[in-house]
Amino acid sequence: MNFRKEHDCIGSKEVPLDALYGAQTQRASENFRITGIPISHYPHIIYALAYIKKAAAITNNELGKLDDEKTRAIVFACNELLADKYHDQFIVDIIQGGAGTSTNMNANEVIANIGLEHLGVKKGEYDHLHPNIHVNMAQSTNDVYPTCLRLTLIAKMDQLIESMEYLQSSFAAKGKEFSHIMKMGRTQLQDAVPMTLGQEFTSYSVTISEDIERVREAKALICEINMGGTAIGTGLNAPPKYAQMVTDKLKEITGLDLELAPDLVEATQDTGAYVQLSGVLKRVAVKISKICNDLRLLSSGPRCGFNEINLPRMAPGSSIMPGKVNPIIPEVVNQIAFTVIGSDVTVSLAAEAGQLELNVMEPVIAASLLNSLTIMRRGFKTLADRCVSGITANEDVCRGYVEHSIGLVTALNPYIGYENSTEVANEALKSGRSVYDIVIEKGYMSKEDLDKALSPENMIHSHPLNLKETNK
Amino acid sequence: MNFRKEHDCIGSKEVPLDALYGAQTQRASENFRITGIPISHYPHIIYALAYIKKAAAITNNELGKLDDEKTRAIVFACNELLADKYHDQFIVDIIQGGAGTSTNMNANEVIANIGLEHLGVKKGEYDHLHPNIHVNMAQSTNDVYPTCLRLTLIAKMDQLIESMEYLQSSFAAKGKEFSHIMKMGRTQLQDAVPMTLGQEFTSYSVTISEDIERVREAKALICEINMGGTAIGTGLNAPPKYAQMVTDKLKEITGLDLELAPDLVEATQDTGAYVQLSGVLKRVAVKISKICNDLRLLSSGPRCGFNEINLPRMAPGSSIMPGKVNPIIPEVVNQIAFTVIGSDVTVSLAAEAGQLELNVMEPVIAASLLNSLTIMRRGFKTLADRCVSGITANEDVCRGYVEHSIGLVTALNPYIGYENSTEVANEALKSGRSVYDIVIEKGYMSKEDLDKALSPENMIHSHPLNLKETNK
Amino acid sequence: MNFRKEHDCIGSKEVPLDALYGAQTQRASENFRITGIPISHYPHIIYALAYIKKAAAITNNELGKLDDEKTRAIVFACNELLADKYHDQFIVDIIQGGAGTSTNMNANEVIANIGLEHLGVKKGEYDHLHPNIHVNMAQSTNDVYPTCLRLTLIAKMDQLIESMEYLQSSFAAKGKEFSHIMKMGRTQLQDAVPMTLGQEFTSYSVTISEDIERVREAKALICEINMGGTAIGTGLNAPPKYAQMVTDKLKEITGLDLELAPDLVEATQDTGAYVQLSGVLKRVAVKISKICNDLRLLSSGPRCGFNEINLPRMAPGSSIMPGKVNPIIPEVVNQIAFTVIGSDVTVSLAAEAGQLELNVMEPVIAASLLNSLTIMRRGFKTLADRCVSGITANEDVCRGYVEHSIGLVTALNPYIGYENSTEVANEALKSGRSVYDIVIEKGYMSKEDLDKALSPENMIHSHPLNLKETNK
Amino acid sequence: MNFRKEHDCIGSKEVPLDALYGAQTQRASENFRITGIPISHYPHIIYALAYIKKAAAITNNELGKLDDEKTRAIVFACNELLADKYHDQFIVDIIQGGAGTSTNMNANEVIANIGLEHLGVKKGEYDHLHPNIHVNMAQSTNDVYPTCLRLTLIAKMDQLIESMEYLQSSFAAKGKEFSHIMKMGRTQLQDAVPMTLGQEFTSYSVTISEDIERVREAKALICEINMGGTAIGTGLNAPPKYAQMVTDKLKEITGLDLELAPDLVEATQDTGAYVQLSGVLKRVAVKISKICNDLRLLSSGPRCGFNEINLPRMAPGSSIMPGKVNPIIPEVVNQIAFTVIGSDVTVSLAAEAGQLELNVMEPVIAASLLNSLTIMRRGFKTLADRCVSGITANEDVCRGYVEHSIGLVTALNPYIGYENSTEVANEALKSGRSVYDIVIEKGYMSKEDLDKALSPENMIHSHPLNLKETNK
Repeated sequence: MNFRKEHDCIGSKEVPLDALYGAQTQRASENFRITGIPISHYPHIIYALAYIKKAAAITNNELGKLDDEKTRAIVFACNELLADKYHDQFIVDIIQGGAGTSTNMNANEVIANIGLEHLGVKKGEYDHLHPNIHVNMAQSTNDVYPTCLRLTLIAKMDQLIESMEYLQSSFAAKGKEFSHIMKMGRTQLQDAVPMTLGQEFTSYSVTISEDIERVREAKALICEINMGGTAIGTGLNAPPKYAQMVTDKLKEITGLDLELAPDLVEATQDTGAYVQLSGVLKRVAVKISKICNDLRLLSSGPRCGFNEINLPRMAPGSSIMPGKVNPIIPEVVNQIAFTVIGSDVTVSLAAEAGQLELNVMEPVIAASLLNSLTIMRRGFKTLADRCVSGITANEDVCRGYVEHSIGLVTALNPYIGYENSTEVANEALKSGRSVYDIVIEKGYMSKEDLDKALSPENMIHSHPLNLKETNK
Repeated sequence: MNFRKEHDCIGSKEVPLDALYGAQTQRASENFRITGIPISHYPHIIYALAYIKKAAAITNNELGKLDDEKTRAIVFACNELLADKYHDQFIVDIIQGGAGTSTNMNANEVIANIGLEHLGVKKGEYDHLHPNIHVNMAQSTNDVYPTCLRLTLIAKMDQLIESMEYLQSSFAAKGKEFSHIMKMGRTQLQDAVPMTLGQEFTSYSVTISEDIERVREAKALICEINMGGTAIGTGLNAPPKYAQMVTDKLKEITGLDLELAPDLVEATQDTGAYVQLSGVLKRVAVKISKICNDLRLLSSGPRCGFNEINLPRMAPGSSIMPGKVNPIIPEVVNQIAFTVIGSDVTVSLAAEAGQLELNVMEPVIAASLLNSLTIMRRGFKTLADRCVSGITANEDVCRGYVEHSIGLVTALNPYIGYENSTEVANEALKSGRSVYDIVIEKGYMSKEDLDKALSPENMIHSHPLNLKETNK
Repeated sequence: MNFRKEHDCIGSKEVPLDALYGAQTQRASENFRITGIPISHYPHIIYALAYIKKAAAITNNELGKLDDEKTRAIVFACNELLADKYHDQFIVDIIQGGAGTSTNMNANEVIANIGLEHLGVKKGEYDHLHPNIHVNMAQSTNDVYPTCLRLTLIAKMDQLIESMEYLQSSFAAKGKEFSHIMKMGRTQLQDAVPMTLGQEFTSYSVTISEDIERVREAKALICEINMGGTAIGTGLNAPPKYAQMVTDKLKEITGLDLELAPDLVEATQDTGAYVQLSGVLKRVAVKISKICNDLRLLSSGPRCGFNEINLPRMAPGSSIMPGKVNPIIPEVVNQIAFTVIGSDVTVSLAAEAGQLELNVMEPVIAASLLNSLTIMRRGFKTLADRCVSGITANEDVCRGYVEHSIGLVTALNPYIGYENSTEVANEALKSGRSVYDIVIEKGYMSKEDLDKALSPENMIHSHPLNLKETNK
Repeated sequence: MNFRKEHDCIGSKEVPLDALYGAQTQRASENFRITGIPISHYPHIIYALAYIKKAAAITNNELGKLDDEKTRAIVFACNELLADKYHDQFIVDIIQGGAGTSTNMNANEVIANIGLEHLGVKKGEYDHLHPNIHVNMAQSTNDVYPTCLRLTLIAKMDQLIESMEYLQSSFAAKGKEFSHIMKMGRTQLQDAVPMTLGQEFTSYSVTISEDIERVREAKALICEINMGGTAIGTGLNAPPKYAQMVTDKLKEITGLDLELAPDLVEATQDTGAYVQLSGVLKRVAVKISKICNDLRLLSSGPRCGFNEINLPRMAPGSSIMPGKVNPIIPEVVNQIAFTVIGSDVTVSLAAEAGQLELNVMEPVIAASLLNSLTIMRRGFKTLADRCVSGITANEDVCRGYVEHSIGLVTALNPYIGYENSTEVANEALKSGRSVYDIVIEKGYMSKEDLDKALSPENMIHSHPLNLKETNK
């Protein structure tokens, strides 16, 4: 009643009467009940498929392989998808067997049926516009699916970069704001030598800037596509000029800086660009996790920790401990990072498992990368807005550490020598007294010289004062 | 208008008027927009929270700390949750900062407000039933959240075990069905010695049986809970007998084999049981992935591969290659396995990052394990139903390999010696002739003895025939 | 001149005249120049091979397949190896292709040549005692190599357990020593509630105890061997009773609790026990890394950190900063842990890559596990001797944190309620004043009751005092 | 007797009388008995340290901080190290706590003592040339150690690239050699469409070319050093112009394209370049592992597998199966790849664990990367020499697959349509007959057209013939 029958090489299959998808999508939705996340969860996947099918149709038309009417129908259908209609028809699970055939066929079927209705024909009457023969003309899953993934990744990478720039600015602003606050630097969690809190936050900003560059480089590799390779890269069933033409067309209608891979056989089986991207995302994750660890360390306390900075208070910290407020935003970003680092292993496994002319495991690579890109972007925005931008410094605490630290003595090496410095340090440690007092008491330096040597300007820039020469 | 104001230690906060959750849940939902997966995605989390809050309320009542009316209200609310009402009120993201405080407070607030309405009081009038004071009485996120996670994991592990048993039977049945089919075993992808196809499938069944045992062992560790430890395991603010009492109560109302951890300080910071479980899931994933690799190898072809078995044809295999059908079900299970193996790294990172008295990264451990358990269960069921149970054997192909193989010669070692065997093997390889013919031609064995030595019974069981003694 | 010629199925091969190994070992040493670590790096590998070859020879003799003279020669040779002679003859690289064939043949050849010389025959005259026909009789690399690996692992696991027990005692002793020292517990690096330093160290001891149990469980799985399975587990060329007999013999001469695997086809291809062991080692690594992180945090400072404990000063901490001493021992143990966690991924990959009847990647599993076991054992011993046993506490610092902390207020929840406690906490935070003073000032509790409520006994055990009832 | 006493801030320490190292090295060798691999295992580490100390001494001399005599002594000592003397004096374990201080001090002490003897003074008389004051002048472990690691990595990366180029040529040559051999391409292990064996091998060559580019990019990041940053990047105790001067000097004497990091505070704590390199090595490992998997698949058989190519026979393949020869070289390269992929996780963990102003876990990063670079280089060389260069093709087997395959039908899509093609394919599959015969029988194409359509030239290039237009 509420079903129509379609058939494919496996046999006939009932499809809901009003579904725009067809038999193969229906099979796929039954075969793959895995994550529960349909490909429509990522609208960019649908846009990418629409762009590809549109570019292919126009190219096939220009090459005289596809007639004008069918071309118009396909282009119409693609434009509908680009206008965010029918996303609910993209029902196949993001993780699927078949190397993405289900994703490709979901698009082929939906586009065919939208086109058929546009042509005034009933859904399923594929003689007039066939998912495989016309919508998929001169294509194979093996070029469509990777190209679709790459277009999707580009969109998500652009969003990621934007969120990274946003976070980078946030740290840079704090770097400036805190540029006058002296504090003790720490190495190996032990008091080291003085620096400014501004230097610390600026370094986070610099780190993120570098990471942005790495993402940009990874994006360049993703821009290489294999349209026209068809089944295994030999271009079987595609006209000779098709590969370059469809690439140019796709470049034109997406506005993206796409390139045709030089060796299509290699490109069809190669997942190197995904592994590279995943490795870069892992790098970004590792770095941001380190920064979040630092933020949590620096704000530890309030009374039994470092207590150098205050993170914005975003939520009550405990169901039992009144007044406790926790560094929940860095904590959630750490967890995002751990997810991304784990996903990188998934991507490696999937890439390694590719056999011969195709990597059949691309769907899990897609799922992993898209999830990582999404949660990273959200996490970075959240970190900037709900944490970094509201950080305040406990200037007195910071300065107090400098004044009472033993690490000050390092700055006196050039004036009193490493071995005397060691002696002073040990005495300070044992007695609990200050380096300052001990140095004067021992007559190693005059109070005046000492003050100069220990001035902030001296300690955070690379130049022992001239007094060095006279005091040695 | 459509909001009510609540307040907490951070300040006041607007909450939708009809929400059963309160200020802290509202904050959490704004702070953590990460995965988009709310905790209600896993109903067992809600059941677990309801069980815990109910057990705690009854215990507190028995200890004289919570009056009868409030106790009844809390128990009523918990029963409502167990009856699958109000799942939509559990809105916090599965990945969250704060070590699960948001999850615990989401439950505390929803239960308080259901209870308040049951008591005839308006939502938010917490004086009558307070999320922290009453619902969370003698509890802390630091014991509630891990206990909740453990109850949830137990439910999901039981489901996993069921799906593994189902798959195991499926392979065992095929093992029997194929017990008479001789084939060549392969080591290092090179022809080795004969075996039966039944032995091959039985070994998959045996492997899964062993894996089930490992999951059961991991479950035993998960059954140890830390209720009563409160903030850091010292049990601050919980009555002395409370920990054991609430554990007994929880055991009673869940019917699960729970145990109170012997050292609550250790238990509060320890994530060893999760790491162990994750390691076992990884093991299961590694093994099932190996099996799927084998299924894909054995069914490779149909004409240019091993072609020993046929997997059920579940979907057209290509948008361009007519008639091609792919091993899509094993392929999707491989991808599930890769996800699980990657998630294990995430769990390790999160466990390692726990500092001092608590592991703040438990939410991502929860998200990783629950996802792995879910997709594995689905994948195993799918593999059994849509692949293994429909596998057929190409008996002639299998037998043909045995007859033409050089590996047969190994069975002749005991009769003609290793060096003669080597000579025969090399000659067969070079000439393309059969081992059988060469052995007779060289007069190493009579046709009669040879036939006996190469009988299936001899080759797949460990007993060189008696003829050995006479022929040497 | 200084070479003798041997031949195998590949052709003839020159071997150093005085080498006890033969052609195949020579080939292997040329084929695999990878890690530079020969199998003799782990003497237990050689012992294991000797035990196996000896047990097989005796069993074959008892079954009437191997004559007495050859048996005696093989047993003699094995005993020589067990007496630590000729380890330098085991030259093949620990990582090798061929699924361990090179390791097995190295043993076969060395044993044959020792045996030949014992028989008064020249090296290489294999007619009298053949590496394959006699030394390897009724065996295959596919049962010898895994059995060898398992024997080796058992020896290394016993050593690991010993080092873990040693470290566990070390922490337990500190737990007792520090049992009277009050300190602030921290969750999420924020001040939480009081505990004793003894509880903290005891929890490390408890954690390690649990980990020891997991290693023991993993060891039980490793004790299952597949001797008698020969090439693919069908036992081809082994007499019917051989498998059980050789297992019993091996059990007898090693004194280990070995068991014959119930399904030898499954056992021959299965690497589950290695994956399980690797997962458990990873768990142990994760936990010890967390403990080392804690030790570094607790000893951070001396003046700008937590400074609750002092680690023994093992080395000058800096080439430039006088007096700086770093937590170098925990640091190196962290790095060991990271290595082990990474190796677990290697093991997973190798296990997953096993195809059909054999896992050809076992050598890298061996290399990974043996390295992990070795560096963990060394690290744990080092951690106990050079760090934990010498830790001292800064009792005054610890107590000072408790007295000045805001977290104290949590202990007052049962007496003054969560909301009043929150108010006190917030005021303390803003003003910098103590909780103690504010509570009295506000008249929430009498000084006397307050002192009782905040007594150490009350705070670190689970029992709000009776004064609760009267004060509310 | 045979010891001399030295002292440092920890106290006095006995050092072997003839040791060129001093107290701190001695302590380190006792503290870190972990891997047993001393830093001298990688001679490039010693060269790097020598270059750095030499460059620093000359720069300090030019800046008037270090007198000529001491400078000459240091330069002399460094040149001795560059001449491969005294490598046995570099005894500290590659994995060490202290962020590399032991490595730096090992160099400082050895150089000081070589210098002292050159000056005619006894070892240990550091007043004349002090490890910290003079050899380490204007340096800190925190700039020396990372710079040393980077110089070492550059040398090893150059070697790796060389081995990759070598392997790439090897595949390229086979690509040419096999360019005329038609075979069936396979996707998802199922017969797909025809291609040449040359295309397959060329694609491996192309893949490796791309990987070489990625390694080069990663190298560029490694070339950025932080000399002059001293303790935490603030340059404390280094003269203002020192950082740039010492970088220029180092560039000059090493001939490498080094650059001074723009933000030394960031550079001192940043391990991004290592994580990037590790990610790239992982990518290379993933790709080569895939290629080795393919080689093993394509050579599977000889009679029960694909049997399209023959790998060189490098060793007898079995201790029990005569004549069996295994793909041992690809197998060992797979295992190298698994090691590298696992090590990438180790590097991520270590990088993530860096806290605040320094990453203390760099030694394990160093150990992991240097091991990966070493075994990859060796593996690639081995793969080229002992496998790829000797591969031969079974041309008849390859061609036979094409002729009998069903996948041929794909090439007929443009002529007879997807649905007719499907029908032909299904009939061929069921009947076991050839596509060729069925197409003619059904009259879909004339024999002549069919021969043209199925000509190799047509099938492996992207152009359906003109007959398409006429036949449709």
